[in-house]
Amino acid sequence: MHDGSEIRETGSTPPAPVAAPADRAPTIHDVAHAAGVSSGTVSRYLNGHKWVGGASADAIRAAIEQTGYRRNRFARSLATGRSSTVVFLLTEPQDRLFGDPNYPILLREITTALADRGMTLVLMTASEDDERRRVMDFVRGGHINGVLLVSSHLDDPMTEQLAAAGVPTVSCGRPIGWESTIASVSADDRSGARVATEHLIGLGRRRIGVITGPLDIGGAIDRLDGYRDALEAAGLPFDPALVATGDWLNVSGREAMTRLLATAPEVDAVFASNDLMASGAMTALRIAGRVVPDEVAVVGFDDSGLAATTDPPLTTMRQPFAEISREMVRLLAERVPGEAPAVSLPAHLIVRDSTAAHR
Amino acid sequence: MHDGSEIRETGSTPPAPVAAPADRAPTIHDVAHAAGVSSGTVSRYLNGHKWVGGASADAIRAAIEQTGYRRNRFARSLATGRSSTVVFLLTEPQDRLFGDPNYPILLREITTALADRGMTLVLMTASEDDERRRVMDFVRGGHINGVLLVSSHLDDPMTEQLAAAGVPTVSCGRPIGWESTIASVSADDRSGARVATEHLIGLGRRRIGVITGPLDIGGAIDRLDGYRDALEAAGLPFDPALVATGDWLNVSGREAMTRLLATAPEVDAVFASNDLMASGAMTALRIAGRVVPDEVAVVGFDDSGLAATTDPPLTTMRQPFAEISREMVRLLAERVPGEAPAVSLPAHLIVRDSTAAHR
Repeated sequence: MHDGSEIRETGSTPPAPVAAPADRAPTIHDVAHAAGVSSGTVSRYLNGHKWVGGASADAIRAAIEQTGYRRNRFARSLATGRSSTVVFLLTEPQDRLFGDPNYPILLREITTALADRGMTLVLMTASEDDERRRVMDFVRGGHINGVLLVSSHLDDPMTEQLAAAGVPTVSCGRPIGWESTIASVSADDRSGARVATEHLIGLGRRRIGVITGPLDIGGAIDRLDGYRDALEAAGLPFDPALVATGDWLNVSGREAMTRLLATAPEVDAVFASNDLMASGAMTALRIAGRVVPDEVAVVGFDDSGLAATTDPPLTTMRQPFAEISREMVRLLAERVPGEAPAVSLPAHLIVRDSTAAHR
Repeated sequence: MHDGSEIRETGSTPPAPVAAPADRAPTIHDVAHAAGVSSGTVSRYLNGHKWVGGASADAIRAAIEQTGYRRNRFARSLATGRSSTVVFLLTEPQDRLFGDPNYPILLREITTALADRGMTLVLMTASEDDERRRVMDFVRGGHINGVLLVSSHLDDPMTEQLAAAGVPTVSCGRPIGWESTIASVSADDRSGARVATEHLIGLGRRRIGVITGPLDIGGAIDRLDGYRDALEAAGLPFDPALVATGDWLNVSGREAMTRLLATAPEVDAVFASNDLMASGAMTALRIAGRVVPDEVAVVGFDDSGLAATTDPPLTTMRQPFAEISREMVRLLAERVPGEAPAVSLPAHLIVRDSTAAHR
C-alpha cells in the first residue's frame, strides 16, 4: 500500500495509485471495524432502526467520532432521484465506446432508465492513471451522486478507488475481487453460454471451439465456464486446442478463428463470447473456404444490432439490455449501505442462419 | 418570452423553455445595459484595469448592485485549468454520437487537448426538453466550468439557455444567430467547399450536383455557399435541379443522390457535404449502374476514418480536427468576457480514387 501523504504530494500521475485510509473518506466499514460490529449493524444504526443494542450503539457513536465518518452525502439525492447526477463510467479507452455495438445500446437504455427518475447522466472514460485521477477528483468534489461502472477488468484501479471513496457504484458485469463491496448487474453469462453451446451440441456438432473474451473480465470467465458446463453435461471432452482468446473486438475474433483452424482443423462449430468476435470468426471462416453453417456453425453472444446484419445472420444469446439498465439504476437509487447485491438476468437464444441445418 | 416564474414553477417539462431575464443569472451585458456603457468597459472594470473613468466605474458599481450581477464563477477555474470540468455537449440524439464518424475523432482530440491542461471532460447529450433542463440544472449547480457545444441547429434552445446562463461556451461550428455571444471554431467550410467543387471542375465536369447538410446548420449553409462560389467563378450556372439536401447520415446521402439522378440524370460529379452522405451517394450510384469516378466523380468533406475505406476510396476535404479541438479548448480557457471570436481553420483536399481520371 502507498502512504496516503505520498499520493497527495505527488504532482504528476502516480503509478497505479492505491487509495490508503489516509487518502480517503472513512466508510461504513471503517466505522464497523473501529466499533467491533458488522457493517450491517452500523447500517441499521444509521438508518434509525430500533434493534441496535445500547452497547453497540455507544460503540458505533464512538467509532463515528474516532474515524470522522460522515453519512454518505451521495445517498440522499440518489434516493430522491431528481437533480442527482450519475456517471456512466467506461474504464476502457474511448475508441472502445465507438467500436463495440453494446455500448450505444447500454447507454441508450441507461439514459432512459435514469430519465424515468429525473436523473442526469454524464459519460466519462477512465483507462489511464490521469483519467482516473480526474474522475476521482470530480467524484470527491461532490459533482456526482453515483457511478455506473462499465467493463471493469480484474484489478482495475478505478474499482478500488471508487470503493475506497464510498461512492455508490453499480457495476455492469461481475466486478472480480469486489463482489462483496460493489453491487453488480449482468446477464447470466454462465447459463447463457451453456445454452449457446448446448444448441450447437443439439445440431450434432462434436468439435466445438470457443472464442473467449479477456480472461480478467468476470463475464468472459463465466462464458467459458458455461461452455465447459455444456460439454461436461454432454460427455464431451474439454480440449485446449479448441480454445482461443480474443479481446471482444472483431479483428481478435478473426485471428482467434484462424488459430482454431490451425490447432483443430476438424472444428465443426464455434461459440464466440460476443457478436463482434463471432463476426470476425465468420470472416476467417469465409477466407478459409469453410461454409457457415454447413461446415462450421457459429453462435455469438449479445444480440447487439450487428447479429442480424452479418452474412449469414448470427445465432446469438440476447442480453436483456433494457432490464440490465433498469436494474442498475434501481440498485443505485435504492442501495442499502453495506450491501452489494449481484443481480443476474437470463439471456435468450435467438436462432438465425449461422446455425440453421440447411439454408 | 415566457415568464421566468412560470418556468420555475412548472413541474414537468415546459414546451421549449426560453430563458427570460427573471430566470437567469445577470450577465456582464445586463450590467453594461444598466450602466449605459459597453460590455467591454464592464469587462475592463472587472479585470481591474485603470482606464475605466470614475463616472463609468460609479455607474458600473451601481449597475452591479442593481442587477445582482456576480462575477462569473466559471472564469477562475477555467483559466487555471486544473480541476475544472468541461462538458462535451452534443445537441443531437445519442445515436448520432455513434452514427457519425466525426464525433469519436472530435471527442478524442478534445480529450487530449483538455488533458494537456489538466481539465476533466464529461459528455452529455441534449436533444429534448427534459435533457436540456437537466443539463442546465447541472450547469447552474456549479458542477462544470465550461461547455463545448457540438452540432447546434438554428434556434436550438440549448444555445439560448447557455448564453443566458452566462456559462463559458465554445461552439464547434458557427452558432447561427449567436455569433456575437458564443465563440466558435470551425473548418473554413465555405473555402473548403469551394476547393472541393473546383477540383471537380478541374476534372472537366460541368454538371456538378451538391448534397447539402441540414440548412439550419451554419456549416451546411457555408458549404453550399462555397459550392456556389466555385460555380460562379467558373462561369457555370447554379441549377436547383442539381441540389439535394440530406441530414448528414449515410441513408440521406443515398436518397439525395437518387433524387439527383432523377432531377438531373446528366449529373457527372457530386460534392457531398460530408463523407457519410458521400458514402451513401456512392451506394446509390452503384445501384443505378453509374461508375465512380468515370461517369460520376464524388467528393466528400471531413476525412473521417470512413473516407479511406469506401470503394473506391473517397476524395474529400480533411477537417483539421486536432487543431479545431485545441483551439476550442484554448478559447474556453482564455476567453475574455464579452468577446466571442469566430475562428476558422483551413480544410485540405485529399485526392483519392473517387475523383481519379482513371483507376
